[in-house]
Amino acid sequence: MSVAISPPKALLFDVFGTCVDWRSSVIAEGEALARRLGLEGVDWPALADAWRARYQPQLETVRSGRRPWTRLDVLHREALDDVLAELALDAVSERDRTDFNLVWHRLAPWPDTVEGLRRLKQRFIIAPNSNGHIALVLNLSKRAGLPWDAILGAEIARAYKPAPEAYLRNVEAVGLTPPQVMMVAAHNGDLAAAAACGLRTAFVPRPTEHGQGQTSDLRPDHGVDVVATDFVDLARQLGAVKR
Amino acid sequence: MSVAISPPKALLFDVFGTCVDWRSSVIAEGEALARRLGLEGVDWPALADAWRARYQPQLETVRSGRRPWTRLDVLHREALDDVLAELALDAVSERDRTDFNLVWHRLAPWPDTVEGLRRLKQRFIIAPNSNGHIALVLNLSKRAGLPWDAILGAEIARAYKPAPEAYLRNVEAVGLTPPQVMMVAAHNGDLAAAAACGLRTAFVPRPTEHGQGQTSDLRPDHGVDVVATDFVDLARQLGAVKR
Repeated sequence: MSVAISPPKALLFDVFGTCVDWRSSVIAEGEALARRLGLEGVDWPALADAWRARYQPQLETVRSGRRPWTRLDVLHREALDDVLAELALDAVSERDRTDFNLVWHRLAPWPDTVEGLRRLKQRFIIAPNSNGHIALVLNLSKRAGLPWDAILGAEIARAYKPAPEAYLRNVEAVGLTPPQVMMVAAHNGDLAAAAACGLRTAFVPRPTEHGQGQTSDLRPDHGVDVVATDFVDLARQLGAVKR
Repeated sequence: MSVAISPPKALLFDVFGTCVDWRSSVIAEGEALARRLGLEGVDWPALADAWRARYQPQLETVRSGRRPWTRLDVLHREALDDVLAELALDAVSERDRTDFNLVWHRLAPWPDTVEGLRRLKQRFIIAPNSNGHIALVLNLSKRAGLPWDAILGAEIARAYKPAPEAYLRNVEAVGLTPPQVMMVAAHNGDLAAAAACGLRTAFVPRPTEHGQGQTSDLRPDHGVDVVATDFVDLARQLGAVKR
């Protein structure tokens, strides 16, 4: 393992799915909204999945240059309006939509995330490299107690992953070279793109990100430098290198 | 005091001089370099002052548009080479210059800085708004234990303070409006520019930033929202608002 020769100086983390359980958080807030508004019969897991399904096609409109740089709050809101219309939930007010859209600022971490990051921070620079903009990731992290050294990501690069600039510009921002940086993610596509830019990679599966019965991203589908069961295991594996 | 009506949500901090004692740090590393190289008779306080004196004129070349966006490491190195030439210290090697230039990544905090920031972080979003680039402020902060929620600053804005974009773009990055943000600095010019953009302001004097006998910035020279003796006092004053 290349890590054994020369450990990375910084770890960059995917956030949605890798650090936080977006799907359960969206479902829980949706169900609370339904109780408050007296909405019945809404399939909130299906709504969460439909909302998220619009995400990559939306990012692609920016990545392809068809649309200028646009923050996730705006994209999330457009997708939410679409999904509510499809489910005939037009009665949800502007105010409730505005608040529900900010659920992405309030996502809950996986049980190991905070403890793993705390341990990793003692040895490495740790920062998110999310497609979420600074305010979103900052609010989410402050609320969840994610102890980042800096908030990096798409807004720094003005490019959405998996575009190469989304990795390279963030590596440059911390004053390092790609081999000095390790990308940590639960998604093979993210890690393949990071590796193509020369970063090292760590795969941490999140087998219930998409709910029970998930079939994608259960294991690395290409060579990665480290595979860890969770962030605490990742800290153990990377920490053990120096001893 | 306006703070009593509605407290700010985020505090942005000047770094050089306000959070860290750049002058003593530069002098200490210079003296260590002199001992190692056997240099005698160098007036390191004068060198530190001469190095720093080039700072605002350099930034002005960028602010005025005469020069494209340039990171502080590059500007610091150009100024260092000038100062060493003036002091006939041409014998200092490329390697030693490269390392000494990075003293700006290793500046020591004032005694109250870490404790004050820790307390403020419990109630507010806290982030640096420095003219230093992300890597510089990140390295400095990690080393000194400054517990920021995010690393903001000139590189986010691609503009150097006191240009308005250097404040407004960072306020936007945290998803807030200017009155929701307070700029904290030991420099009247920084606070006047922030206030002109609608931010609230806190003045924390650092009466030995420029050594004994300092005559500038000993007190606020215009209306500010808060005057605190140090960061712990600032935390006390702002924290008392909520109780």
